[in-house]
Amino acid sequence: MRISPGEHDPNLIAALDHLLSSGGKRIRPALVLLSAGMLNADRDHAITLAASVEMLHTATLVHDDLIDGASLRRGIPTINATLGPGATVLTGDYIFARAAYLAAEIGEQALMKIFARTLMTIVNGEISQMYANSKSDAGIPDYLERIYAKTASLFEVATEGAAILSDIDEDAVAVMKSFGYNIGMAFQIVDDVLDFTADEERLGKPAANDLRQGLITLPVLYFLSTASDQENLRHKITTQQCDEDELSEIVSAIRSSKAIDKALDQAQEFITTGISLLKMMPANQERAALYELADHIINRST
Amino acid sequence: MRISPGEHDPNLIAALDHLLSSGGKRIRPALVLLSAGMLNADRDHAITLAASVEMLHTATLVHDDLIDGASLRRGIPTINATLGPGATVLTGDYIFARAAYLAAEIGEQALMKIFARTLMTIVNGEISQMYANSKSDAGIPDYLERIYAKTASLFEVATEGAAILSDIDEDAVAVMKSFGYNIGMAFQIVDDVLDFTADEERLGKPAANDLRQGLITLPVLYFLSTASDQENLRHKITTQQCDEDELSEIVSAIRSSKAIDKALDQAQEFITTGISLLKMMPANQERAALYELADHIINRST
Repeated sequence: MRISPGEHDPNLIAALDHLLSSGGKRIRPALVLLSAGMLNADRDHAITLAASVEMLHTATLVHDDLIDGASLRRGIPTINATLGPGATVLTGDYIFARAAYLAAEIGEQALMKIFARTLMTIVNGEISQMYANSKSDAGIPDYLERIYAKTASLFEVATEGAAILSDIDEDAVAVMKSFGYNIGMAFQIVDDVLDFTADEERLGKPAANDLRQGLITLPVLYFLSTASDQENLRHKITTQQCDEDELSEIVSAIRSSKAIDKALDQAQEFITTGISLLKMMPANQERAALYELADHIINRST
Repeated sequence: MRISPGEHDPNLIAALDHLLSSGGKRIRPALVLLSAGMLNADRDHAITLAASVEMLHTATLVHDDLIDGASLRRGIPTINATLGPGATVLTGDYIFARAAYLAAEIGEQALMKIFARTLMTIVNGEISQMYANSKSDAGIPDYLERIYAKTASLFEVATEGAAILSDIDEDAVAVMKSFGYNIGMAFQIVDDVLDFTADEERLGKPAANDLRQGLITLPVLYFLSTASDQENLRHKITTQQCDEDELSEIVSAIRSSKAIDKALDQAQEFITTGISLLKMMPANQERAALYELADHIINRST
């Protein structure tokens, strides 16, 4: 009579299949596995952590699609678009629970705590973002805070978590956490740049999607800082009052401005810091792969 | 720059205040604290577990309000009605995270696992329920499975969790888990009966709310089993085709039928089983209070 966690509703299985078939970059689990390998952590625990981190990430994406009303994610229709808001909430909740269960299976209290704390940080950041659209004077510090909550916090869990699974001392765990933080910040800045520079087909979502939603990212902030009608333009963007022609015009202007390069320079700074932290770690094959991963983050085209 | 879990967005705080000011019965934390007291478990851990269990419960209610489109909960407007779906999803997610964090703080792996597993059970049950409305032949076993997932599973966590925090052996932990299961099943059946028998003001939500939503509960199942046009009536209810007059008629018919007493008899059976399990536990003041709590579950009017 009782439902065991192994007995899933067929509709839930269909929703999960839909989600997992859409791929994604799997950069967070790669980060866990490489960091754990570099630090000689228990491999089974590392695999469990990698799955848990990716599921936590996926769960937040599922709920984001409901919040944003997005119809496409990774190039395929969202659960929200196909099954509606109720199923979306529940699918996200289920993946959260599964992620927490995996994290609990490892049996490291410290890990469980950073896991739960990160979910709080991510959600708190999203709530701030939801209300920040009406905040007209948000600047670079607000932006950095937001992308920390949205992205870098989970990169931190990936690298700090892997470090916790190994035998390294507290200071080295802090270094690994900071490595995750830095490449996570870079990752999100590049993501925000790609929203302007990548073509729609490769990205799997409409170009300048953030701008359409009234979201001010780093390229926009740099662009606005040199624009003549700054106040007015910012107001039109955040209140989503631009029509398609105006949006195209802004996107073109940003693309041909120095804002893109300035944003990429900022991302490169984070990568450089991350790499210098990584130098303190054991020199082995996995560390070399982490260098490559950091390099890929800044040089990727999707 | 980084958001710590202690620095909350003011809008989140407002949403949480709104939620916590609405009261509720707090029966789950009471169950944790009394069970832990009876078994001489660590008091600080018991308080943390009690808060965690209540927050897990609250988070599921917040998301339920979005799924059901409910405008009232505990007599006050839902977050969904006041702040919209995005804020509702995120508020629920935040409370989940906070609940997981509290559970992690206790530092008992077994507890963390049952906590995460229960969230999976609850969500899986809700997904089944979402699609079950189209399932026209759902009977008593389906109903019992649903209320286990919805309610009794969390009562189990309350009593099993408290038992895990104490020094009792595995068999006794299983007895406590079963005690929670039985009074949880009774609690939900009584809730489903009260949806028909309690008046709207005391209940804090519209009467026959479940019926309006096409949800077949135990009183309805017993009523249908003796109704002449059973198939037709069930179809009209589950497809939500009844107008207000028809709904009033069905409610009156159920109220004056034997269905209510039969459902309460079933609830009493669960309570009796629960009490007989409780007899195996140490005879002290807290056990006496748990007897009273079990008695209150069957005799309450809200």
